[in-house]
Amino acid sequence: MELLDGTKVANEILDDLKNQVENLKKKGVEACLGIILVGNRKDSESYVRMKKKRCQEVGIINCDVRLPENVTEEELLRHVERMNQNPFVHGMLVQLPLPPHINPERIISKVSIEKDVDGFHPVNFGNLALQRHPEKTMFPCTPEGVIYLLDKYQIPIEGKDVVVVGKSNIVGLPMSLMLMHRGATVTVCHSQTENLKQKTSKGDILIVACGQSEMITSEYVKEGGVVVDVGINSVKDETRKSGYRIVGDVNFEFVEEKCSYLTPVPGGVGPMTIAMLLSHTVKLASSE
Amino acid sequence: MELLDGTKVANEILDDLKNQVENLKKKGVEACLGIILVGNRKDSESYVRMKKKRCQEVGIINCDVRLPENVTEEELLRHVERMNQNPFVHGMLVQLPLPPHINPERIISKVSIEKDVDGFHPVNFGNLALQRHPEKTMFPCTPEGVIYLLDKYQIPIEGKDVVVVGKSNIVGLPMSLMLMHRGATVTVCHSQTENLKQKTSKGDILIVACGQSEMITSEYVKEGGVVVDVGINSVKDETRKSGYRIVGDVNFEFVEEKCSYLTPVPGGVGPMTIAMLLSHTVKLASSE
Repeated sequence: MELLDGTKVANEILDDLKNQVENLKKKGVEACLGIILVGNRKDSESYVRMKKKRCQEVGIINCDVRLPENVTEEELLRHVERMNQNPFVHGMLVQLPLPPHINPERIISKVSIEKDVDGFHPVNFGNLALQRHPEKTMFPCTPEGVIYLLDKYQIPIEGKDVVVVGKSNIVGLPMSLMLMHRGATVTVCHSQTENLKQKTSKGDILIVACGQSEMITSEYVKEGGVVVDVGINSVKDETRKSGYRIVGDVNFEFVEEKCSYLTPVPGGVGPMTIAMLLSHTVKLASSE
Repeated sequence: MELLDGTKVANEILDDLKNQVENLKKKGVEACLGIILVGNRKDSESYVRMKKKRCQEVGIINCDVRLPENVTEEELLRHVERMNQNPFVHGMLVQLPLPPHINPERIISKVSIEKDVDGFHPVNFGNLALQRHPEKTMFPCTPEGVIYLLDKYQIPIEGKDVVVVGKSNIVGLPMSLMLMHRGATVTVCHSQTENLKQKTSKGDILIVACGQSEMITSEYVKEGGVVVDVGINSVKDETRKSGYRIVGDVNFEFVEEKCSYLTPVPGGVGPMTIAMLLSHTVKLASSE
C-alpha cells in the first residue's frame, strides 16, 4: 500500500502559492481571505485556526469577523454584506456549521459569488453540476482536493467504478458530480443504502465521507482498490495529553493491507482542503 | 409485467390542470406558455407541436416565437428578454437543441428564473442539487415525470438500488440527483462505463436515457426489476406510411418477460414530461 500523502502534496501547492502571493505584493495586491466565525464550537475554532495559520505561511492576510453564538441572522447578514463590499477582501467564507437559529442556506446564498471560496453558493454549485464556466467556477474545496490528490498520484478516474459514501452538500454530492464529470461510474451510498459492504467493495476507488469513526474495515474495501478517507472524527483517548485523538471514517490498520493507495488521517484530505481554499483565494486576488 | 401507463397518468394530470385553468380564467388569469423555436428540425417541430396540442386541450394559451435557423445569438436573446418582460407569459422555454452557432448555456441562463418551466436555469439546477427551496424550484420535466409515475404506481424508491444510464444535464443528471434525494442508492452509468450489463442488472429500478435505440435487452435487466425507458428514437420502418417508427432505448419485447414494471415507448415517459411542463405553467400562472 502506498500512502496518499496529502501533507506533502499540499505543501508543494502552498510553496507555489507563496511565490504567487509575493508576486502579487510586487504589483501592490495583498491577497486577503475573509473568515466569519460564529460561536465557540471547538472544532470550528480549530479549523479556522488551521486555515489562518496556513494563510500566514503563504503570506495571505486575513480579515476576521468573530460573532457571538447568539448573533441574529440579520446581524450576521450585515457582516456578510460588509465583507462582500470590502474591496480588500478577495475571498471569503462563513465557517459552518452555524447555530441552529440561523438558516445556513440564507447566509451562504448572500456571499458574493465572486468571493465564494468554499464554492457553496447555489450558482457556483449549479455551474459545477452543469459543467458551466469551469474556468470561473469555484469548486468545493474538499472534493477538489481529493481529485487533485488522485491526479497527483496518477490514479486514473475515467471509466473507473467509484463508490462515494455520504451525500452531503459539502462533500459527498459535489464529489460525486466531479467524478462523474471526469468519466467515472459513480455509485453514491448513504445511511439508507442496503448491503453497503457489497457496494463499497466494488469500488476501484472508494471515497468515504460519512462521519462514522473508523467504520470502514477490510470487508468494505476492494482488493487492490484506492481508499480516500474524508472523515475527521475526534475520539476519546486517555493516553493522549489532549484526552482525544483524530481518526477518519476508515479503520486504517484493518484496511492498509488490502488496498493499493490510502489516505492517512490526519495528513490526507485535510491539508488538501486547506490548500484548495488558499488556492481559490490567490486565484481571486490574481484576477483583481 | 405491469405497464407503467404514462398516457393514462398524464391524462389524469391534464384533466386536473384543465379545471385549474378554468378557475384561473374566472379570476381573469389566462395561463400562458411561451415557446421559442429556432430552425426547422423535424424532431423539435414535432415536440413543440405536441406541447401546443396539450396546452390547447387544457386551455393554456401559447405565445410562440419562431425564428430562422440562421438567427443570431443576440437576436435570440432579444426575443428571450422580450418574453421575460411580457407580463402575459407565465412560463417559457427555448426548445433545444439550438443551432451550433448559438451557445445554449448563454440562452438558458437568460431565461427568467421565475418563468423557467424546463428547470434548466443554473440557479434552478443548483437549488435542485442542494435541495434548496423545493417548493419554489422548477424541476426538469422528464425526471420529475418519471418520479411522479413511480410514485403513482407506489413503487418504493427509498433504500432501493437505482441505476441510471445516461448523465445528460437534461435527464440523467437531474434524475440521479432527484433519486438520491429520495433516498435511493444511485449508480450513474454512461458511455465510459465498463461492464455495463453487470451494473444495470443490479438495479431494482433501471432508468435508461442514453439515446441508443433498443440497446437494453434482457441481460441488462434485473429479474423482477422496474424498467423506465426515457429514449425516443426514430428508426426506419418501410412497413409504415411515415417510413419510420418511434422506439425507446429498451428492447421492449426482450425485456417485458423479465421485469415487474415497464414503460412503453411511446406512451410512457413522453406524455409525463409534457404533463409536468403544463403543470409548471399552471403553477406559475396560479401564483401570479
